Parts: sequence; structure tokens; C-alpha cells
Amino acid sequence: MEYQHLPYEALKQYCEAVFQGYGFSREESRQITDVLLDADLSGIESHGVQRLIRYHKEITGGMVKLDAVPEVVWETALSAVMEGNDAMGQLLGVQAMELAIKKARQHGIGMVSVRNSNHFGIAGYYAKMAARDGLIGICMTNSEAIMVPTFGRQAMLGTNPIAFAMPAEPVPFVFDAATTVVPRGKLEVYAKRGNTIPDGWALDETGHPCSDSSRVLKNIIEKTGGGILPLGGAGEATSGYKGYGFAMLCEICTAIFSGGTTSNYIYKTPGRSNIAQFYMAVDHSMFGDKGEIEARLSTLMQEIRDSGKAEGCERIYTHGEKELLSKARVLEEGVPVNEKTYEEMKMIGQYTGALSVLPTPTEGGFK
Amino acid sequence: MEYQHLPYEALKQYCEAVFQGYGFSREESRQITDVLLDADLSGIESHGVQRLIRYHKEITGGMVKLDAVPEVVWETALSAVMEGNDAMGQLLGVQAMELAIKKARQHGIGMVSVRNSNHFGIAGYYAKMAARDGLIGICMTNSEAIMVPTFGRQAMLGTNPIAFAMPAEPVPFVFDAATTVVPRGKLEVYAKRGNTIPDGWALDETGHPCSDSSRVLKNIIEKTGGGILPLGGAGEATSGYKGYGFAMLCEICTAIFSGGTTSNYIYKTPGRSNIAQFYMAVDHSMFGDKGEIEARLSTLMQEIRDSGKAEGCERIYTHGEKELLSKARVLEEGVPVNEKTYEEMKMIGQYTGALSVLPTPTEGGFK
Repeated sequence: MEYQHLPYEALKQYCEAVFQGYGFSREESRQITDVLLDADLSGIESHGVQRLIRYHKEITGGMVKLDAVPEVVWETALSAVMEGNDAMGQLLGVQAMELAIKKARQHGIGMVSVRNSNHFGIAGYYAKMAARDGLIGICMTNSEAIMVPTFGRQAMLGTNPIAFAMPAEPVPFVFDAATTVVPRGKLEVYAKRGNTIPDGWALDETGHPCSDSSRVLKNIIEKTGGGILPLGGAGEATSGYKGYGFAMLCEICTAIFSGGTTSNYIYKTPGRSNIAQFYMAVDHSMFGDKGEIEARLSTLMQEIRDSGKAEGCERIYTHGEKELLSKARVLEEGVPVNEKTYEEMKMIGQYTGALSVLPTPTEGGFK
Repeated sequence: MEYQHLPYEALKQYCEAVFQGYGFSREESRQITDVLLDADLSGIESHGVQRLIRYHKEITGGMVKLDAVPEVVWETALSAVMEGNDAMGQLLGVQAMELAIKKARQHGIGMVSVRNSNHFGIAGYYAKMAARDGLIGICMTNSEAIMVPTFGRQAMLGTNPIAFAMPAEPVPFVFDAATTVVPRGKLEVYAKRGNTIPDGWALDETGHPCSDSSRVLKNIIEKTGGGILPLGGAGEATSGYKGYGFAMLCEICTAIFSGGTTSNYIYKTPGRSNIAQFYMAVDHSMFGDKGEIEARLSTLMQEIRDSGKAEGCERIYTHGEKELLSKARVLEEGVPVNEKTYEEMKMIGQYTGALSVLPTPTEGGFK
């Protein structure tokens, strides 16, 4: 699979035109694009423009309702439950995290659990919203069942990522991790490239290890069994039940709290995804002087970066550091986009009337 | 290593006598014993009476202060920071979780971060306290540095377990997981048995894989490098940086919030452990009707238990189920104790005056 680089600003303009083409307002299109391209800037190709085709299908197919008006259906000083009414996940996400932040500013903590949303991009984006505001941000989403529980052969839980962000110097702590060994998007990238996946990532329909990404994805789509392993791998030897347990935490905060749909029923009602999400903001001044608290985190992170490296390794990263390094690189070199994704972008451009602003490769085309 | 079984009630009487022998009150001794034996009942040998020798050393050596009076040094409606003053970890733990539960009953959430504590047994015990009261319980502790961060060769973080408990029927959800592949206690059990540890658990002093439990433990104690891998294993292929990230969450809630000591400094001040802990209780009625919320969790857990098994596997467990099965078995058959631990218990019995109530094997001695 060949890659080319598209200038970030031009790609942004194209994406905003695409979403306006579907009928979203200018501000909505800006918000959705900001979440989408934050993944590409962070080097998380799986959740960036390569996913445009998925959003295209869900928006044009009516799964995402453009005119949806989300409602707060339950509220306390510290918490809320939102009925998403099938709105675009990114728009719901920004709205729900803003509500969590408002509550945290007033009372120290805000928690918002959302049902009947849609795919919302990277969970880390919303956690970072709180961190940019000087708070701790936590975000989770459930998703189509793809994780096989320990000793199972049937996908019952989603990739169920957990994100956590907190201010620190010189770089914040930004953790964003699927509770599967890898997220579904990584399988998609391997399948697009025609690559074999590493050992310890996935199971076939009988519950045995499998390294064929296309077969695993096909099984998942057709619900014929198998899927991705929980963080910690197969069986108990390296503690796969821990990834399965963290996925349960995610399920509790998203679907169980909100009265939404657990991962094993997601995308099973025709025309609806029923994804559920969770947003939390914490004002750490609840535990003392904020500056001192953040300084302690900065110190620990620096000590870890400075600690002894394994033979053959040059650098230890703290969470979020790689994404910032990627951002600097992508802003300079452009967003890497593979040939297949570029073809999809042409089609989407044609459909939405955004083709005229589809950026051309920075130099020399695919390489 | 040979095992024998000691009747639970008799073992409990012995342990309570031991702690009273050190000078703890009857009620304190009961609390400490309850936490300690909850591990044995749950089948977590690593954290049960085999650890008595460690507490013996820390109490008689003065690291645990029998007359310590913990203080709340910072408090808001939803949060508190406690200075543990080197009290026994189990006693601090019960006190701190009771405070978190009280706050959650009043305001929906309670969070207590504790510094300068000591080893407190299994984190799950405290999470279960909240669940028994009809709330969600969360508990974390940092610990002596034993986890090597991704690409490192030096232990910088503890096993840093995260526990989460929530009521459900017919069995509650009780998750309690070290964020390392395995806890330190498991290495100790392997070392006592003279066994080789599985691949993917540990690194030697150069940062390369190592299967010699005694060598890894020796390196950790002498701070010569190496340690246990984060959940997810070595490098990035199976996402070891996720276990490392969850360990950072634990560090933030425990040492960073409380102004305590991060894992890389624990047990480095002579005569003090400086362990930090975190306790949180959440009243899930903040999200709607409690019965309905718990029923949704019960349904998901049942669906997972009922889902398809991998070829060769007979059963899928939900978190906490194995521990309950163990409890029924241990109450009937007695607590399995190995020969080396039994010898230590004799010595401790002699020291504390509890030897006369040291239980004898249920039948036939070691087998």
C-alpha cells in the first residue's frame, strides 16, 4: 500500500467541506473535523481520515441523524445521563464533555453517561478537552463487540477504550488505550495493507489463535465467532482477564450507567449503532494545591523518561509524548494517506461537492 | 513444596492472637485478620498468610507504628487527603474507605487519597466494602517499584493494582488486578516453590526477558535493575505501554493526589515504606434507579457467562466468581498453607505468644 502526504490545512478544509456537504453546519463541521484530524495529527492513522468512509456510510445511510437533538434525561449536581438520539458521536462528545467540565468547575467532579450515540473518534480527544481547561479528563466508549472474553470464542465486548488526561510540564499525561490488545482500526489498517497480524492479537471462530486480519474482520462483521483478544492475551498466563475486566469497567460507565446498549448488542438494531459513552472531569484542587499536584506528576514523568533504558532501546516515552512528536512532524510533512483511502476521499468529495478542495499530494504522488 | 490445610476458624483465631501479641487491640486485630484471610479465602495465596512473615518484620522492625494516629490533612465535601503516619495499612484502609463511603452516601461520591501508609493486603477487600454497602467501590495502592516501563530496564512503578467492585446478582462484579502482568506475590510464591516463571512476566537487569523468579526478586530487592513487565508485556507489539499507563493512573490517584511518595521512592527511606493508597465510593443512583442499573450489569454478566466457549474450555468466569468458588471450597477444606509458611507461622507464634493456638493440619500433615 502506497502512501502520500496531504498538507494538514488543506485536508482540514476538505473535511469541513465534506461534512457541510452532508448538511452539518459550519461550526458542527469544524468540530467533527477537529476530532477526526486530531487522530491523524497524533499518528493514530486507524482513527483518522481512513475512517471517513465509515462515517460516509453511516451518515448517508441514516444511522447518524443530522437533525438529532440530544437530551439530558437525568441530572444531579455531579452527574447526568444523556439520550443521544443517534446524533453524530463527535458532536455529542464535545457537548457531553463540556457539561462534565461545567459540573467539575462548580462542584469538583462532573460525570456524564451517554446512550444512543455513534462512533466518536478517539476517546483521548475528549479527555484532552478537560486537561486543556486545567482539569483531569476521563473518557470511555463502548463499541461493536470484538473482544472475546477469557476462555470464550464469541466477541462479547467492544475495544472499549479508556482515556485519561492530566496537565503536566513540559508535556501533559495523555493515556488513551483500547482494552483489547489492539483497536479494531489497527486490524483495518493491516487488512487494507494485506498484512499478517502479530501473534497474540486475535482468535478465530473456534477460539484458537489467528494471524489473518481479513479473516478475523470478516468473522466479526458476520458474527461467526472469534475476535480480538483482551489486553493481556489469551487464557490466564499473561492475565488476559485483566483487559477483559477493564473492558467491563468501560461497559459499566457507558451502557450500564446510561441505560444504553452493551457492546454485544451494538450495530444489531437495523439503522442504529446504539454506542454508549462516558465523560468525566475532575478538579484536582479537591486534593490540595493544583500547581504542587501537577509538579509532582511532572517530576515522576521526568524521572521515568530519565530512567535506565533496555539494551537496544534509546528512549522511554511518557503517555502522550509520541503523539506530540507526531503532531510536529505531521504539521510539517503533511498527513500520510494511503492510496485506497485517497480513492475513497475522491468518491466522498464527489458525493458531497467537496472534490474541488480535495488536496493533492505535497510532492511526487504516492510513494 | 508440600501443602497442608488449616481450618479457617482456627487460623483466624491464631492470626488475631498474633496481632494482639504485637500490641494491636482486639478490634484492630480482627480487622487486620479479616483483610489478610480474605485473600486466602479468595484463593489469592500470594496475599494471604504467606505474607505474615513480611508483616512480622515490618511490625517488629518499627516500620509499622502501632500507636500511629492517622490525620485528615485536607478535606472537601467529596474528597480528603489523609496522612497515615505509618499506621498499619489494613487499619488505615478500613478507615479511609469508611470515610469515602460516608461522603458518597451524603453527596454521591467520596474520594480519599492516603500517604505514608503501609502494605494493606488486597485492594479488592476495600472495594468490596463499598459494594457490600450497595455502592461502587474503587481502590488502588502504589508499592515498591517493580514494574519496568516500556523500553526501560529499571523498575520505576509498583505493581499498582486497581480494584473495582459493584453489586450484581447472583454474584457481584469484583475486579482486582495488578497493572503488572502478575503481582509481586506471585513471584514470591514461585520463588518459594523453586519454580521457573512463564515467558512474558519479567526482565533481567539488562532489560531482557528472564524466567528465573529468584533472580528477578533478588534484582528487585537489591535495586540492580530489571523487574516485572507491565500488563501487555515487553515492547509495543502486545501493548505493554497500556499496563504502564494504568500503573500511572494508580500513581496519580495515590501518591500524586496525596502528596505522598511515588513507587520509585517507596522503601527507600530507612524504617518507612511510604506507600500511598486511594479509596473511592460512588453511589450509582446518581445515574438513575439503582435496581435497574444493577439489573443491567447482572444481565451483561450472565450473557457473558452463557456465551460460546473456546474449544477445550468449559466455562467463562465473570470477575469475582472464581474468588467466591474458592471461598466455599476453603471454608470446607481449610486454607492451604505450604511447609515454609507453616514454619514461619511457628516462629511468629512463638514470638507473639500465639503458638498455643496455631492450628494443626486438618488431616495427615503436609501432602
